Amino acid sequence: MQIIHTVEEMRQWRQTVGRVAFVPTMGNLHEGHLALVREARRRADHVVVSIFVNRLQFGQGEDFDRYPRTLAEDTEKLAGEGVAVVFAPDEKALYPNVAQQYHVEPPNLQNELCGAFRPGHFRGVATVVTKLFNIVQADAACFGKKDYQQLTIIQGMAADLNMNVEIVPVDTGRAADGLALSSRNQYLSQTERAEAPRLYRELQTVARAVEAGERDYAALEAAAVRHLSENGWQVDYVEVRRADSLAVPHIGDKKLVVLAAARLGSTRLIDNVEILAA
Amino acid sequence: MQIIHTVEEMRQWRQTVGRVAFVPTMGNLHEGHLALVREARRRADHVVVSIFVNRLQFGQGEDFDRYPRTLAEDTEKLAGEGVAVVFAPDEKALYPNVAQQYHVEPPNLQNELCGAFRPGHFRGVATVVTKLFNIVQADAACFGKKDYQQLTIIQGMAADLNMNVEIVPVDTGRAADGLALSSRNQYLSQTERAEAPRLYRELQTVARAVEAGERDYAALEAAAVRHLSENGWQVDYVEVRRADSLAVPHIGDKKLVVLAAARLGSTRLIDNVEILAA
Repeated sequence: MQIIHTVEEMRQWRQTVGRVAFVPTMGNLHEGHLALVREARRRADHVVVSIFVNRLQFGQGEDFDRYPRTLAEDTEKLAGEGVAVVFAPDEKALYPNVAQQYHVEPPNLQNELCGAFRPGHFRGVATVVTKLFNIVQADAACFGKKDYQQLTIIQGMAADLNMNVEIVPVDTGRAADGLALSSRNQYLSQTERAEAPRLYRELQTVARAVEAGERDYAALEAAAVRHLSENGWQVDYVEVRRADSLAVPHIGDKKLVVLAAARLGSTRLIDNVEILAA
Repeated sequence: MQIIHTVEEMRQWRQTVGRVAFVPTMGNLHEGHLALVREARRRADHVVVSIFVNRLQFGQGEDFDRYPRTLAEDTEKLAGEGVAVVFAPDEKALYPNVAQQYHVEPPNLQNELCGAFRPGHFRGVATVVTKLFNIVQADAACFGKKDYQQLTIIQGMAADLNMNVEIVPVDTGRAADGLALSSRNQYLSQTERAEAPRLYRELQTVARAVEAGERDYAALEAAAVRHLSENGWQVDYVEVRRADSLAVPHIGDKKLVVLAAARLGSTRLIDNVEILAA
């Protein structure tokens, strides 16, 4: 497994191999990331994992500075997974001009759901993923369904800008009690960690109700918000949306997803559950 | 020479060849385009020329509908130039969702010079060029210096988004009387055509003055505007800028360019002259 820090070296390596699958990450890897890597390994002989904490997708007051950077542990975890290259550029390699000048601008979905609470976040994600795609030139790239809105935006971007890469969605990894795996879980106190799985349980409750025929999404969303608030959560949103586009569902839509973001103390957690309505 | 109309066919062809040089055009080809093609031919064995009148870069009230579409004549002109593929997608092939959802957003330079008079134009150019780059996957792409601001934005975009393509600037083709070759020249009446070379002459006058040591750019610009206006032109701008970034020049900058846009009747012409200050 090679560790590459510069864009030039990454491009040179790319010319020496055939099909490549790519897993972009911000490091601090957990089992959820390793599931992405294993899916990538099934898609191509050569897997590239990038590790880059992308300032562009963090807002003011967000956790860019305290976001855990654990390159040594990360590479150790990847060593046993058949990864060909860890691409870990430093900030100057990706942003040599300090400020990024050209951006990939997603449509208004970037301002909804998580985007309403994180202005500029998805523009920053779309831009850095475009940069990484252009550097790594992968044939396939794996993204977790846990960041469902991110996945939807990346899929839309790749299709709309004719990017020559297959976007592969990968199911959310979960702890035994259901909590979605996330680097931000380590910010949780012991009490918060015990409370955290409620988010997933509430989403499952909404999903089961819709699958059982309930169509008053607003009432289901409100009930979930109430249950979470009663248990100390500050809820950003709980929303039922169309699974393909994240548009507000129309009557008769079958493929749905319920998504939520909520804070326990200062830690913001997100999760979602796909729904196949009856 | 193959003529390809679909994205899928273009991608398939791309896999069968090595190095490719690319010339994106809106068709209605003249000698200026053929100079781009010849430069491309020097850069790679396989040359792809795209012909696509890109609605996204035309503003309201601009000449999208009357822009000349001359595919048969264009392919005839290209047939003798050793072009491998003419990529001529129809509107639905590049914009299957009617409206483009994801855009490449250039920095504020997109609102200056020509951008001040054509809102959204350079965003439309950057977006379609990104799409074409992703489809054609060329190693080099040739752009004319006649569209100097476009060239600067494409160069910036390719660098800033880490696009894996070399941007090759090509000198402006000119008629014997100095008029820069342009598809829009055919809109000119006989009288306008006789007047049109004044634009280039005025830019040369500015350039020679700067090269001779004159540093009052504002006075030179104002004189050029006055001469053009006195001869029936409606001048959008005449401006001296830095050649590399099109930023407003600082004292001591040597590599400059004087750019202009002005209308004769309903026809908008642009031109520029590079300057190496003493």
